[in-house]
Amino acid sequence: MILRPEPLSALAFGAFGQVLEIAGQVAEKINQGNTLKFADLAEFSFGPDGSPRLSVYRSRPAPTPISICMLERHPLGSQAFIPLHTRPFPVVVAPPGAPPGPDQIRAFMTNGRQGINLHPGVWHHYQLSLDRESDYLVIDRAGPGTNLDEHALEDEILLLP
Amino acid sequence: MILRPEPLSALAFGAFGQVLEIAGQVAEKINQGNTLKFADLAEFSFGPDGSPRLSVYRSRPAPTPISICMLERHPLGSQAFIPLHTRPFPVVVAPPGAPPGPDQIRAFMTNGRQGINLHPGVWHHYQLSLDRESDYLVIDRAGPGTNLDEHALEDEILLLP
Repeated sequence: MILRPEPLSALAFGAFGQVLEIAGQVAEKINQGNTLKFADLAEFSFGPDGSPRLSVYRSRPAPTPISICMLERHPLGSQAFIPLHTRPFPVVVAPPGAPPGPDQIRAFMTNGRQGINLHPGVWHHYQLSLDRESDYLVIDRAGPGTNLDEHALEDEILLLP
Repeated sequence: MILRPEPLSALAFGAFGQVLEIAGQVAEKINQGNTLKFADLAEFSFGPDGSPRLSVYRSRPAPTPISICMLERHPLGSQAFIPLHTRPFPVVVAPPGAPPGPDQIRAFMTNGRQGINLHPGVWHHYQLSLDRESDYLVIDRAGPGTNLDEHALEDEILLLP
């Protein structure tokens, strides 16, 4: 099966998480007018016994077409990826719940200025990069409990970015 | 009074907060060896009734020398600034506690790859940028209570970056 990414937008991505971007957001002027503050861009969810954890993921570019064989999910917390670069990258997701069939798997392409914040339990492929090694800021949940499930796909999907 | 920034390092900055950087950190290989994970880079502190908030601050460059007339502090939570660019920027801080005298005020310059996470209550100047408009990811505390104190300096300090 061939999967081609659609452009990432808040509307299209709403079932899976939030698009983290300042485009279209209202800013407040602070710091004597010298700073525009785009506040409260993400709805974090770390549960009653979780706490936020900040990491950097440095990811190798994936050879294209990108082979999608496995999805994962974090049932106990949201997971945000914010690029520390300005190049588009693909995001592969499927709805939370039972392991998805192939027709439930969706791919999106960021515009180079967007990050994402996955809702808890949303199935997704691990962070993918194109072209060159890329760094991402990751904000996810630290805490007790098993926060990783994996699902091997029956048939490989080829992602054509 | 003239203040010249010193290079930002974890050792020199320890009393004020953390330096957020992957240089010198140990990484774990994840995602079938395709990702280096530099985990848990920040010690967030949002208190019992606070929660993490993600914002973007877009700040105008300050004319140099930079006039330092006012400091602020957030007693109830940590505040992290992570540059969404790779240019050095100055950080002006003073120890938590009583409003600082001029000899307690310190300035640091990032190396273009560093962010900071201020401990709760650390006096600091608002986010400063050099040369051009610059974006920062900010992770600080949302929640009830007064989380801003301001302190006007008796004498202006000139920061020479």
